[in-house]
Amino acid sequence: MSARSFDFWFDFSSPYSYIAAERIDGIAERHGWTANWKPMLLGAIFKITGGQPLTDAHPWRAEYAKVDFVRSAQMHGLTLELPSRFPQPTVNAARAMIWLQRTDPAKARPFALEAFRTLFVRDGDLTDKDTLARIAAAVGADPGQMAAGIADDAIKQALVRNNEEAAAAKVFGAPTCIVEGERFWGNDRLDQLERRLAR
Amino acid sequence: MSARSFDFWFDFSSPYSYIAAERIDGIAERHGWTANWKPMLLGAIFKITGGQPLTDAHPWRAEYAKVDFVRSAQMHGLTLELPSRFPQPTVNAARAMIWLQRTDPAKARPFALEAFRTLFVRDGDLTDKDTLARIAAAVGADPGQMAAGIADDAIKQALVRNNEEAAAAKVFGAPTCIVEGERFWGNDRLDQLERRLAR
Repeated sequence: MSARSFDFWFDFSSPYSYIAAERIDGIAERHGWTANWKPMLLGAIFKITGGQPLTDAHPWRAEYAKVDFVRSAQMHGLTLELPSRFPQPTVNAARAMIWLQRTDPAKARPFALEAFRTLFVRDGDLTDKDTLARIAAAVGADPGQMAAGIADDAIKQALVRNNEEAAAAKVFGAPTCIVEGERFWGNDRLDQLERRLAR
Repeated sequence: MSARSFDFWFDFSSPYSYIAAERIDGIAERHGWTANWKPMLLGAIFKITGGQPLTDAHPWRAEYAKVDFVRSAQMHGLTLELPSRFPQPTVNAARAMIWLQRTDPAKARPFALEAFRTLFVRDGDLTDKDTLARIAAAVGADPGQMAAGIADDAIKQALVRNNEEAAAAKVFGAPTCIVEGERFWGNDRLDQLERRLAR
């Protein structure tokens, strides 16, 4: 039994969060740690930091990012295709994740992975209610109850608090892992995270 | 004999360029490639792209960068200490490198590595003429001739052309490797670069 855990902050709209989500539990488990999956909205963070989506960066960098997303996925044996609609608002997916974490936590991570794959492998649209319902059904959750959860004020407030907690931890991008106060930003820092967990 | 080469763009003021400089020839040689070391000035690039040094980023990110510089060096068995004066103008070091590449190319890479270590291991000041003279002497170059080279209009113009060439190749940060037109930005993409070279 592991008593040690670290926070894994992610945004469903983030390609590097998708890649990290596919890897994080394996890395944690290899070293006797548990990852606390914490959905948040980069948009809320960027309002504080002045950050912006990579697709809004200078064209040389934005164009590079699209290549790098795919190459970074391939580096870990994963498929990634940039969605037709990108970036897209993922507030409902984040709320659904929080709702599952509260009501049926064993289904939360499978839901997150299914949502990421829907967006980044199958060009799905996470703003679409039917798409979210299909993801719910795929992990054995009730689509109607999930839709009610997404609309629940308590769940909305919980996501706001997640964003506030991320900001308090100085999370400025996604994914970010925080191990005993030490930040590891980016899928490309999971090697340094692993080194830290192995200590 | 290898006929294959790729460009390795770097700025002496960049900590990640230092780490990459320590690694790049080993990576290239393992796969029968040669790295063309190309000094440039990020300042010239940032004037075009609107980029900024990480130390000028939002405080959450700037503070993180300072931790990440050190951790990233340690990941590769290297020492890195943030210089007292950072970032510092490295135009003279870049000109000295170009002068050596033209007049005594075998000394150019040793000079670059000595300059990087002076800045990032021994807290040296690359804007200081005596410091540059010591680096010249350490690699067997004539300090007086190097100082004249740094002041030579042809060398100054060559650095301007390097910056223009980097911009034409859509280099937006340092280090950047370019393999047959494909960009790999960052010390943290040398793994993907190596995968490309091994193909």
